[in-house]
Amino acid sequence: MVNPERFLADLHKLRSFGASGVGNGVVRPAYSEADLAARDWLSEQMAAAGLEVQMDATGNLFGVTEKPSLLLGSHSDSQPEGGWLDGALGVIAALEVARASREADGPPVSVVSFQDEEGRFGVTTGSAVWTGHLEQTVADALTDHTGVSLASARAGLADRVTGPVDARRFTGFIEMHIEQGPTLDTSGGKIGVVTDIVGIRDMRVTFDGQQNHAGTTPMHLRRDAFQALAAFSTGLSDRLRNIVTPQTVWTIGHVSLHPNASSIVPGRVVFSMQWRDAQTDRLARMETVIRTLADEIAEAHGLTVRFGPVLGLDPVEMDATLRARLEDAAEREAPGAWRAMPSGALHDATNVASLMPVAMVFVPSIGGISHAFEEDTTEQDLVCGLRVLARAAAQR
Amino acid sequence: MVNPERFLADLHKLRSFGASGVGNGVVRPAYSEADLAARDWLSEQMAAAGLEVQMDATGNLFGVTEKPSLLLGSHSDSQPEGGWLDGALGVIAALEVARASREADGPPVSVVSFQDEEGRFGVTTGSAVWTGHLEQTVADALTDHTGVSLASARAGLADRVTGPVDARRFTGFIEMHIEQGPTLDTSGGKIGVVTDIVGIRDMRVTFDGQQNHAGTTPMHLRRDAFQALAAFSTGLSDRLRNIVTPQTVWTIGHVSLHPNASSIVPGRVVFSMQWRDAQTDRLARMETVIRTLADEIAEAHGLTVRFGPVLGLDPVEMDATLRARLEDAAEREAPGAWRAMPSGALHDATNVASLMPVAMVFVPSIGGISHAFEEDTTEQDLVCGLRVLARAAAQR
Repeated sequence: MVNPERFLADLHKLRSFGASGVGNGVVRPAYSEADLAARDWLSEQMAAAGLEVQMDATGNLFGVTEKPSLLLGSHSDSQPEGGWLDGALGVIAALEVARASREADGPPVSVVSFQDEEGRFGVTTGSAVWTGHLEQTVADALTDHTGVSLASARAGLADRVTGPVDARRFTGFIEMHIEQGPTLDTSGGKIGVVTDIVGIRDMRVTFDGQQNHAGTTPMHLRRDAFQALAAFSTGLSDRLRNIVTPQTVWTIGHVSLHPNASSIVPGRVVFSMQWRDAQTDRLARMETVIRTLADEIAEAHGLTVRFGPVLGLDPVEMDATLRARLEDAAEREAPGAWRAMPSGALHDATNVASLMPVAMVFVPSIGGISHAFEEDTTEQDLVCGLRVLARAAAQR
Repeated sequence: MVNPERFLADLHKLRSFGASGVGNGVVRPAYSEADLAARDWLSEQMAAAGLEVQMDATGNLFGVTEKPSLLLGSHSDSQPEGGWLDGALGVIAALEVARASREADGPPVSVVSFQDEEGRFGVTTGSAVWTGHLEQTVADALTDHTGVSLASARAGLADRVTGPVDARRFTGFIEMHIEQGPTLDTSGGKIGVVTDIVGIRDMRVTFDGQQNHAGTTPMHLRRDAFQALAAFSTGLSDRLRNIVTPQTVWTIGHVSLHPNASSIVPGRVVFSMQWRDAQTDRLARMETVIRTLADEIAEAHGLTVRFGPVLGLDPVEMDATLRARLEDAAEREAPGAWRAMPSGALHDATNVASLMPVAMVFVPSIGGISHAFEEDTTEQDLVCGLRVLARAAAQR
């Protein structure tokens, strides 16, 4: 029913929008020229598959059937330096399943590519707005790390926007994705059927000290924002030790020093503080530790600290019925080579779960590597995932 | 003899090139459009003062007399976010003294504005090349934090370049400068006559780890470049404690994380490591501590570390004769309100000291603030410094 060659060809075609030139790497951040070109190409494929193309004001792109249908998809924006499968796999697999189902007179299947899943402006921004977790007006005020607002970025969508897309036309949502972790790859598993998605918190923190000359300012008079951040970062690992599990993670992935010159004591640092766990209450306890320590460090170093809004999503369970359909399909396509597992990564499915039943299916990531140009999955595993998705979607 | 109004007017005119719009702040990094425009204007003033305008291939700008002469000056490039007096004061004071001396048939005085003192590409790059401390071909390969090479930056000088400027035509060099520290301001001093300039070392360090997904990579498997930097920075303060003096300083002022996104474990960090002290052997002992600790941290975190070339300058003493002329002038212009003092900041005079006798004179910095838009000095103190410089230059 599904056509593996057509599916792989489309996957490579999507990769060509923003291809980094390094392996299969992709640079296609939300609202970039490459992202918009990719969405234009996806629109053409949706239309050719007999779907009605709709784009909402945030840039979420849908290809919908006339009748109520299951929704399949993911996102087609990438990390600043991303792989070719993160998000893209789920979108192209959805396209192929929808197309094949229509060709075979199967059940109607609609397709979505959400916008800004990778968080240029927030966290899963497009699906958060579509599902009502984030007001468009609030989202519009979010800025990326260079100071560009979402409002001005989405102005570039121009006349692609057709209007709101009613979620009630969809009976459920299944997102296929690469695992982005080492579990399937190291265990020889082919398919992961997701049980739940861990929650995430993301907060921008600013330390304000005193910018000054790096030669004439004695060490004991300095209010060095970077030294405060270093002390915060090393101290945090100690403080969190007693409340986390081996699955809990926290990351300082973005750091912006000001003015960022070797001969100047840094007067300000803005950095990202992100943490993830499967328990909502643990996420809250971690936030308390983070805020308390940052306050203490600021006090000790003679600085002030400011906390941005806490963005993020609570942990969510997958829908039992859709999950059973995926498990059944997995057992048929990869007997004995699939497992039930949690998702350590955040996905658009988290947002969509508040509107309809959702489920997710994973294929292996080679070496567990993702959010990097090296990200990859064997063609055999990609096609196996496609067949599982198609089989689950075909069940009535 | 010197004209304070003309001097202050010229100082404000120079400020207008790259004026930041924040207080008296200036954004005029070496080879920028603003820097080149400022050098064009300075050339006109030099010519109008009867000096022959010469620019060497690095962009150092001279206004020279026919006969051998004393050389006065400093630099007219600024920090990425600089004040209006750092460097500019010494250049405009030199211009006024040279102009006034010529008007009064005094001794010949030449003027210089060195290029890239602020280290867009290295450390006092322009004077380092002029004095033979740095080969032009080596300098050309230096890159700024955005990857632009000095070779391509100086191509923008175009036909301004007249050729090499022979240092043997100058009998000595006096650099007037703001203190950039709190000593004069807090003690009520008007003039500082510099005894020696502390040495500086500046090295770019890179930690290479493994970029990965911030949700699916367990903490114990991470090779996070930022965590390594934080551990290095906090550890360094402990390690240096036993070998430094209260005047010793060290700074991590520039940090560049890669890829610098909140949802990605940083795979690489490049940062600046700078340290300063009046003793050459202490600078060397600090370098050993820095390299050893970085190696240990890299080993402990599963990363590799790379060290760039160690740039910098050794500590230098000021010339006794020129210093005595400045002390005599200071006692006449600011009786009882001047002091002999070391310079904690690096200056072009450090490089020039290998070619001819050099000396330096300081005026107060309000609040000790420099390398910031807030940098300032009272007009009274500026003019007092000008008179001291003029008086010292007039002595035969």
